[in-house]
Amino acid sequence: MRMAELVAETGVPAPTIKYYLREGLLPAGERTSPNQVKYDQRHVRRIKLVRALVESGGLSIAAARDVLAKMDAPGHTEIESLGKVLYAMSAPRGTADAESAAAVDALLTRRGWKIRPNSPARDSLAETLSTLTKIGGNDFTALLDDYAKAAETLAKKEARLILDRGEVDAMAEGMVIGTVVADALLSALRRLALEAEAAERLEA
Amino acid sequence: MRMAELVAETGVPAPTIKYYLREGLLPAGERTSPNQVKYDQRHVRRIKLVRALVESGGLSIAAARDVLAKMDAPGHTEIESLGKVLYAMSAPRGTADAESAAAVDALLTRRGWKIRPNSPARDSLAETLSTLTKIGGNDFTALLDDYAKAAETLAKKEARLILDRGEVDAMAEGMVIGTVVADALLSALRRLALEAEAAERLEA
Repeated sequence: MRMAELVAETGVPAPTIKYYLREGLLPAGERTSPNQVKYDQRHVRRIKLVRALVESGGLSIAAARDVLAKMDAPGHTEIESLGKVLYAMSAPRGTADAESAAAVDALLTRRGWKIRPNSPARDSLAETLSTLTKIGGNDFTALLDDYAKAAETLAKKEARLILDRGEVDAMAEGMVIGTVVADALLSALRRLALEAEAAERLEA
Repeated sequence: MRMAELVAETGVPAPTIKYYLREGLLPAGERTSPNQVKYDQRHVRRIKLVRALVESGGLSIAAARDVLAKMDAPGHTEIESLGKVLYAMSAPRGTADAESAAAVDALLTRRGWKIRPNSPARDSLAETLSTLTKIGGNDFTALLDDYAKAAETLAKKEARLILDRGEVDAMAEGMVIGTVVADALLSALRRLALEAEAAERLEA
């Protein structure tokens, strides 16, 4: 298909698609004549995925490129391929204190979650716990196991959906959906539930 | 206290604190002599909150300033003050299709959540559902009620913690923690749970 059809099929304007091409987020199309380039369904699918990463996930262009590069260079096994995509979607930002890191390890043991030592989400969690303590959010630290229980219940269903996709490419896309897109979903739902709950209590 | 003490107490370097002052994220200190400015515990507390918004929450400086401005201009009632802070922490990015907007309304009715018509999280949720459909994530759309149930269970506990804080300022800080900081907490926990669950299934 031509650029105009790519625009029609994805709903993404041509300048944005050209930007994705320049930034290496999309593979180049096939040049069929000096002024004609052909695209295919892989481009359609990839453009939609970029939108999901950048818009729902709030990832930077550089971070999205990193996730996509991991998807394009699959590992030797399914677990390795999915792990690479999953790890690319966590970016620890700061540093955690030793106490918070220990609290994360204790939680992992308590819940029986087997996590690789280099899992970036482990550092992200420790950092967030560190922040929580610093800003006087110890009341919320008490909810840590409630959050973990909710995450576990959801992960059981998400992992099933992802693996049911069958093909490794589709599984990797499922991993993106189950993390960044579902983060956005849950974030909006939590704000709605909190609004409803706080209003009910304050009006009572 | 002086700048040096403010740095020691918050762990945030002086250039960063000066940047926050210039950007209007922090109220100015009290000038006690031509080359001396005094700060107090309100500054300590506010700096920590800014860090939470910007680092854990990933908010831009402009978005953080907006949240803080809402906290500094409380409403006539507690519910109005907390609502302003809550709404400042949701920023819908795109537009949703009519079908997704209808799905959100149906969900709110199904769960009995009473939400104001101008709630930004309502639009955020509709947009994310829109994205999910576009990228072929209908398998995940089927989990919407699971996500909503998790959000509701957590919101009941979060609302209690927030209201138990008593003072409206502390409640508003609790609202920030229960949204942006808890988003980061849950995001990391979900990645850890997903890693553990996917690895267990793939190794089986």
